[in-house]
Amino acid sequence: MKQNLDEIVKTLQGAKNILVACHVFPDGDALGSQLALGEVLESLGKNVFLYGEDAVTHLYDFLPGSERIITMLPDLRDFDCAVALDCGDNKRLGQGMDLLLAIHPFIVIDHHFGHKDFGDMRWVDHTRSSTGEMVYELIMAMGADISKDVAFCLYTAIVSDSGSFKYASTSAETFRIAGELVEKGVKPAKVAGKLFDNFTVNRLQLLNEVLATLQLHCNDKLAVIRVTREMFERTNAAKADTETFINYPRSLKTVKIAIFLKEAENGLIAVSLRSKGKEYDVARIAGLFSGGGHRNAAGFKRSGVSLDEVERALLAEVAPLLGAG
Amino acid sequence: MKQNLDEIVKTLQGAKNILVACHVFPDGDALGSQLALGEVLESLGKNVFLYGEDAVTHLYDFLPGSERIITMLPDLRDFDCAVALDCGDNKRLGQGMDLLLAIHPFIVIDHHFGHKDFGDMRWVDHTRSSTGEMVYELIMAMGADISKDVAFCLYTAIVSDSGSFKYASTSAETFRIAGELVEKGVKPAKVAGKLFDNFTVNRLQLLNEVLATLQLHCNDKLAVIRVTREMFERTNAAKADTETFINYPRSLKTVKIAIFLKEAENGLIAVSLRSKGKEYDVARIAGLFSGGGHRNAAGFKRSGVSLDEVERALLAEVAPLLGAG
Repeated sequence: MKQNLDEIVKTLQGAKNILVACHVFPDGDALGSQLALGEVLESLGKNVFLYGEDAVTHLYDFLPGSERIITMLPDLRDFDCAVALDCGDNKRLGQGMDLLLAIHPFIVIDHHFGHKDFGDMRWVDHTRSSTGEMVYELIMAMGADISKDVAFCLYTAIVSDSGSFKYASTSAETFRIAGELVEKGVKPAKVAGKLFDNFTVNRLQLLNEVLATLQLHCNDKLAVIRVTREMFERTNAAKADTETFINYPRSLKTVKIAIFLKEAENGLIAVSLRSKGKEYDVARIAGLFSGGGHRNAAGFKRSGVSLDEVERALLAEVAPLLGAG
Repeated sequence: MKQNLDEIVKTLQGAKNILVACHVFPDGDALGSQLALGEVLESLGKNVFLYGEDAVTHLYDFLPGSERIITMLPDLRDFDCAVALDCGDNKRLGQGMDLLLAIHPFIVIDHHFGHKDFGDMRWVDHTRSSTGEMVYELIMAMGADISKDVAFCLYTAIVSDSGSFKYASTSAETFRIAGELVEKGVKPAKVAGKLFDNFTVNRLQLLNEVLATLQLHCNDKLAVIRVTREMFERTNAAKADTETFINYPRSLKTVKIAIFLKEAENGLIAVSLRSKGKEYDVARIAGLFSGGGHRNAAGFKRSGVSLDEVERALLAEVAPLLGAG
């Protein structure tokens, strides 16, 4: 792993024109990592292009430099190196995947469990809390300085993907890096305010409507919530606003598996699944519906069916696992 | 300050029978600090009595040793030293205050801003995230070992009072200590699960009912929620279940001041106030109603009046501050 890191450092140091990409529907870790690495590479004299297929949502536009991320593919012949950050597989690059992967060397830095190898040079470590934590180490290995903005982006990445130091991948090393970034001038309360105190009234109203749909099954071990098109319309909230809602049924003491059924645009039904601990693998359940993800967080999409139909099919698979027929 | 710490270390080392007290309605910081210090003092051969006026609620009974905290005052002639942890003033000791303060030397360790001096020996530092952080340093200064249980209690104290590293008092030192405690075997996800994934269905239903009462005033800068006796009865939830509810109106982007009106037992109305940043001092507002607290978190109680009356009186004070008549 360290060997790969050394190779990546040398490659980046030798490159002149670098494309840095993050995944579709980018979150705080993807964007924080991308913006931090971008600024550092520029400080080292590189020409940097920051690419992401999807625009930065209002949840993350507080990140310094976020307006610099471009959603249109540039002329890819201009680059002598590309970096994909926080992408568990090549599909996470979006529709421009094939074009992007034509850039060589193509560097991949990721922390997802079950990462599917792609690219030319890989540094993948699923024991890390976040890609941000890895980018911090990469920057250290390059011997570059960390500006206050870079520290802010990396800290946001770490907080974002560790659920503010709550998830299992939070390590002593995560805390050591967070401490270093605070020494560089990051104010933890400021980042937390931006990430967690960013509710709009519409979003809180939508949360309220969604929580009212809570159904418990299998001796309260299974919790199901849903959001419908009417709820989105009534509250004037957006899809991105539902991002953390599944944490509420998940936070119930008795719950082992939580399901969030979402009526998305164009008749699509999006389903998020969460489980606690090692007992239940929701990636396997999502796999039954052509979806995927991690053991504790997975999802799938369906079209041409109703929320009720998806729920019935899903309960038929999940209930037996939880000891109910 | 360090001088006080040295004096406290010497005093504790010289004492044989020590009473360790925390504050009324104890939270994670009070209990985690108390249990950690208790276990360490016992490991040093002291006789330790853990006292708290209020019983440990179901929210914190996962803390190892929590069943050892006694709510009845013992024979106070037995002690040659007492320690009060996390008490911003002597009233926080509860009704046994005068009896407890008859123990000498009486040591006070606290991190509350606006702490009112009491006791014989004080170590007060409002720049600390938590009393747990200070107890960690005290234990280090005593040269004692930190067992896995002690590390768990201290980590819980820090996470609890820093809102999982989100509040302004979270420092590089906070992260350094958290990292040390993780090195001792604490699993961050386990503590977070106990502290944050402990919702009962009743509690989630109550949250839902309370969120439905949200009212915004003063160009959405003021948010008000309420809980009534009927809601408690309908959902079968308890007073302790409402502990974090004020964070929801507070999390609204536009909100500067959040108010939570609670219909408590015996016709009592309890009011919690929160503000963001340095602009609005809710302790001053609470003071107008004979309450108190910190600049960003305060409260007061009233009896013999209705929720609506309290709300009207409060809005008449708050609205002008937010630029509305």
